[in-house]
Amino acid sequence: MKAVRLHRYHEQPVIEDVPEPRITGPWDVIVDIGAAGLCRTDLHVIEGQWEPLQKPELPYILGHENAGWVREVGSAVTNVAPGDTVIMHPLTSCGLCSACRVGEDSHCENATFPGLNTDGGMAEQLLTNARAVVKLDQGTDPKAVAALADAGLTAYHAVRRATDALFPGTHAVVIGAGGLGHIGIQTLAALTAAEVTVIDQSEQALELAQGIGADHTVLATDDTQAVTKRVLDITEGGAHIVFDFVGEQGMEKLSPQLLRPRGSHYVIGYGGAVQLDTIDIISREINVIGNLVGTYNDLVELMALNAAGKVQLRTQEYPLDATLDAMADLDSGKLAGTRGILVP
Amino acid sequence: MKAVRLHRYHEQPVIEDVPEPRITGPWDVIVDIGAAGLCRTDLHVIEGQWEPLQKPELPYILGHENAGWVREVGSAVTNVAPGDTVIMHPLTSCGLCSACRVGEDSHCENATFPGLNTDGGMAEQLLTNARAVVKLDQGTDPKAVAALADAGLTAYHAVRRATDALFPGTHAVVIGAGGLGHIGIQTLAALTAAEVTVIDQSEQALELAQGIGADHTVLATDDTQAVTKRVLDITEGGAHIVFDFVGEQGMEKLSPQLLRPRGSHYVIGYGGAVQLDTIDIISREINVIGNLVGTYNDLVELMALNAAGKVQLRTQEYPLDATLDAMADLDSGKLAGTRGILVP
Amino acid sequence: MKAVRLHRYHEQPVIEDVPEPRITGPWDVIVDIGAAGLCRTDLHVIEGQWEPLQKPELPYILGHENAGWVREVGSAVTNVAPGDTVIMHPLTSCGLCSACRVGEDSHCENATFPGLNTDGGMAEQLLTNARAVVKLDQGTDPKAVAALADAGLTAYHAVRRATDALFPGTHAVVIGAGGLGHIGIQTLAALTAAEVTVIDQSEQALELAQGIGADHTVLATDDTQAVTKRVLDITEGGAHIVFDFVGEQGMEKLSPQLLRPRGSHYVIGYGGAVQLDTIDIISREINVIGNLVGTYNDLVELMALNAAGKVQLRTQEYPLDATLDAMADLDSGKLAGTRGILVP
Amino acid sequence: MKAVRLHRYHEQPVIEDVPEPRITGPWDVIVDIGAAGLCRTDLHVIEGQWEPLQKPELPYILGHENAGWVREVGSAVTNVAPGDTVIMHPLTSCGLCSACRVGEDSHCENATFPGLNTDGGMAEQLLTNARAVVKLDQGTDPKAVAALADAGLTAYHAVRRATDALFPGTHAVVIGAGGLGHIGIQTLAALTAAEVTVIDQSEQALELAQGIGADHTVLATDDTQAVTKRVLDITEGGAHIVFDFVGEQGMEKLSPQLLRPRGSHYVIGYGGAVQLDTIDIISREINVIGNLVGTYNDLVELMALNAAGKVQLRTQEYPLDATLDAMADLDSGKLAGTRGILVP
Repeated sequence: MKAVRLHRYHEQPVIEDVPEPRITGPWDVIVDIGAAGLCRTDLHVIEGQWEPLQKPELPYILGHENAGWVREVGSAVTNVAPGDTVIMHPLTSCGLCSACRVGEDSHCENATFPGLNTDGGMAEQLLTNARAVVKLDQGTDPKAVAALADAGLTAYHAVRRATDALFPGTHAVVIGAGGLGHIGIQTLAALTAAEVTVIDQSEQALELAQGIGADHTVLATDDTQAVTKRVLDITEGGAHIVFDFVGEQGMEKLSPQLLRPRGSHYVIGYGGAVQLDTIDIISREINVIGNLVGTYNDLVELMALNAAGKVQLRTQEYPLDATLDAMADLDSGKLAGTRGILVP
Repeated sequence: MKAVRLHRYHEQPVIEDVPEPRITGPWDVIVDIGAAGLCRTDLHVIEGQWEPLQKPELPYILGHENAGWVREVGSAVTNVAPGDTVIMHPLTSCGLCSACRVGEDSHCENATFPGLNTDGGMAEQLLTNARAVVKLDQGTDPKAVAALADAGLTAYHAVRRATDALFPGTHAVVIGAGGLGHIGIQTLAALTAAEVTVIDQSEQALELAQGIGADHTVLATDDTQAVTKRVLDITEGGAHIVFDFVGEQGMEKLSPQLLRPRGSHYVIGYGGAVQLDTIDIISREINVIGNLVGTYNDLVELMALNAAGKVQLRTQEYPLDATLDAMADLDSGKLAGTRGILVP
Repeated sequence: MKAVRLHRYHEQPVIEDVPEPRITGPWDVIVDIGAAGLCRTDLHVIEGQWEPLQKPELPYILGHENAGWVREVGSAVTNVAPGDTVIMHPLTSCGLCSACRVGEDSHCENATFPGLNTDGGMAEQLLTNARAVVKLDQGTDPKAVAALADAGLTAYHAVRRATDALFPGTHAVVIGAGGLGHIGIQTLAALTAAEVTVIDQSEQALELAQGIGADHTVLATDDTQAVTKRVLDITEGGAHIVFDFVGEQGMEKLSPQLLRPRGSHYVIGYGGAVQLDTIDIISREINVIGNLVGTYNDLVELMALNAAGKVQLRTQEYPLDATLDAMADLDSGKLAGTRGILVP
Repeated sequence: MKAVRLHRYHEQPVIEDVPEPRITGPWDVIVDIGAAGLCRTDLHVIEGQWEPLQKPELPYILGHENAGWVREVGSAVTNVAPGDTVIMHPLTSCGLCSACRVGEDSHCENATFPGLNTDGGMAEQLLTNARAVVKLDQGTDPKAVAALADAGLTAYHAVRRATDALFPGTHAVVIGAGGLGHIGIQTLAALTAAEVTVIDQSEQALELAQGIGADHTVLATDDTQAVTKRVLDITEGGAHIVFDFVGEQGMEKLSPQLLRPRGSHYVIGYGGAVQLDTIDIISREINVIGNLVGTYNDLVELMALNAAGKVQLRTQEYPLDATLDAMADLDSGKLAGTRGILVP
């Protein structure tokens, strides 16, 4: 089959013919790929940034946002059958470790991460497992949902955990209206009645945000004090929850300043560092909350939202053969506000 | 009446005769003080550390851990009557602001803080209000409970918020087995079945901890790596919750290292700063949780625990006239492991 | 001032001149009534049904759904000032009993219930207290919100408590699309992404329901089996939550049959009896949940939803002088799908 | 191997030689039985009461409370290895259905129930699966824990779900201090600081209850009004939670009368019917909560409590050959207050 394989870090991946995957374990599932999302993480993989964490054996197939149709299943698989339309949770979890038993699949001790540490979905077929596949309505178009499998899931997970605190009359602040923030804002509108304020350094991103659920927008400038004052005014004393989809470039320092007493800073993006005096933490009784990908159940819920038309993506399709063009477009900013989708 | 008043920062307070308080508002309550706890915060007040935050008008009466018997009540008070034995929540809350309406009295927008920003309880009588008094069993001895009103309440509040996460098989780590930690350990034993590991730099404090609920103890030394390794071994991979009753001297940096994935660092003590890379926060999905005093309901619950014999204090009594001796003993370390109680 | 007073049960109330209320307590608030909602409960009061429960001293002024402008406040009132636009929580709570301290104002041990056990709001002025008034945006029209104060609050309260269980992909079933159900459906749409199925015996009510958030509707007929089958089909095995706004006429028996395992039957309407074999309760692990009015915070949140345009009422205005006409219209069914509002 | 098989309902089971189980599926686990608990349910099985629900194919091996040592594992099993000491969750869940994915294994759509609908553990070996086995400390004695696998788990599950509501100062009432109640009381003492009142018709059972955590006991007599009054006095107005381990003989009618406003009736035992006027449900805002067995995680937690010495059983051992004697003793009441344990 055709596949996009990384042979060496800092070099272009190669589109080439490779053997098809084979079922060897009882929970194995092989999927005919309908669409694979292209993500900035793929560029970071090529740059070698994930090597120390995931240590994949090169060459291997990229692609961690995958959807398609079940082709073949192992002997113990009962939840899907050949022909079913499915989207894949990014991790193949074991169902036996303690994290799995409490539904925290993304902390599974025995998982693989196709596209990061083993063959992924930028190919005609993908080997995954029964606990990773979410069955969709038969008519769902993989191209419309693939990019929700990782980026969408991460944004959904963070917002979902905060919904209890976001009752009517509360304020949510979203930092960063890019790929993740885009899904985060739609999820806030679907799951809560909180007032949503979006901060971004792009006026275009803010305009887009207004169309999908933002009640207020604030342009991020170098004048941090002015931004802070504006947000405190809009939120009448600070946000109940700040969702920081950036996590670097100073946003991780700004976030706690935007909270009201008892508020929480949800860290989703990364790169920078949080630094807070303990007197500040206790006197305002504020919290910093870590967020990582999402659970299988999160993905099931996100797919329900998508099927109801409440969370949607803007996409641009490329044939799998044009993967390098798609990567170039992503790298050069031509895909701003939209997700590249590879179709084999 | 006799009272301990602070006239000037950095000077000894003066024990002197002052006019008795008078009922002026409908919710006022005057209490005959049975006991006032002496707290390290009182020394900090004298040193002027709280001046910028609380801005009291000097001279004023010290004492923010108070218990006694109701002497007189305002026209609208229905929950207590003269003669009732009571302990005082440290804040006199309003019952009307939004914090009060959700039971978060310690964030009341209109509160006074007797002993910190207005006349406190190191005196024969205290002016407080109806929403601050917790009615106790008539026979309760104010001397046995007064010091739970603030230090005890703070420790209880933090542990109480974490109980959901501390089901059987989980690990709680307590940093600092002093006045607050002492109550925290007893509360953990009373409210949870978690395994409790206590860290302190005093062997004596650790011995005491073992007698009141600690399952394991670890001596805090300069060899942070060894301490970390020991705790990770005991907790089989890290604590579910770390209660940091110190919050300075490096403990605030150590705490996040003692967490397992999805664990939480409860900040209670203060003085230092938390510093965490966002990649560390998200990849382990850990949290930092601020904790401030406690609510009125927390104090009601703590009093129930105390009445059931499950949380108790070791105290040393001084007559109010000997307040300066008590302060000297506290300052010189003579009260380690016990609380000084002033009796008018 | 002019007021609608009940002099004798089973007789028409009398519109007459009565003395204006006066401030006597420190937390008293007098409100110039802008609008008073007319509710089926008022008819039941006249029929004497509430006498044994509320025991009002006749004659007294009817009206328990009130909004208007603050006229005068007692000495201790700090949360509103004369001129403020306000809606009234139905109970005047004390802020001191244990129910109040946990924010469960509707179980306050010392409350009055204006319109039920003391003078209500079908008058030019109403005496209430500081803990009952919710301050609104100055420009809010009392006529547009008054009927949310009790009927709306009750529906909101029930839905609000269930939101945690109503994540995307779940099914809510609403029984009864009348006054309360109408608000319940809008609240479900605003606070959850659950799929909503509405059951009513009126086709007209079902049509209305579709316009405000119902995803599916089922006509209630005498063929209970057919109704059950239809709901189980739509919900793919039963509802996660059934909101029973009727609570009689067999709906209270039908509700548990519409649940999936681990589902909950929220009882809001009343009149009938729930009867369930314990083997049925445990083998399906289902629950029956009681719901009573709502808390002060519920009303604050509902007002936020209303201000955001997410929950709205259809109303028909009557001058206070035409109260008896309004009552006749309500009794004869002329107000179906709309709420009568009395304007002094 | 030797096994206790039921050949015909209403006849004694037969102790006979049967073929050993064999691994056929990838998740299969075969356990050398160390101990099998004898339960009243076994007598009901013999009487044919479970036939309509579980429909086992006769003859089959009884025994649903099992512990022992892993003998052999299927190809995909990674969580246990031959030689490991284990206790078995009563259900073999699939890990793929939606109930399993949220950790509600006892509602698994694809489970078997060894001892009820397929071969159980009253034998030398048991066939179970990887998701049913809980690994214990190697030295744990199966005889000491086997009976916790079902009866203990059911009691633990109910109490565990209520712990949030049972903070200090609250009242729990336990109805029935037999096998389940016995574990329930110990769990309440281990997990909560609630005040515990136990009701039973046996003075001996009440005495035992006092030794393991009951603060108050009330003898159940025919004078229901006196019992109710006594409980309302002890609980100062009613229980926050009533745990009804009987569920028949009138206890299911008594339970709601023992609740305070906002209280919950936890139904665990069964046989009778709950009957409540909807006006009573809403005016007191009370709840009825169904409880069924427990989850895998519940069993893990219960084993942690047991290992810590906080929940223990009184047992009487019988060799497997003496199973019929043990059943006769159970039936005739000779095992009151203790659990029969069969040892192959």
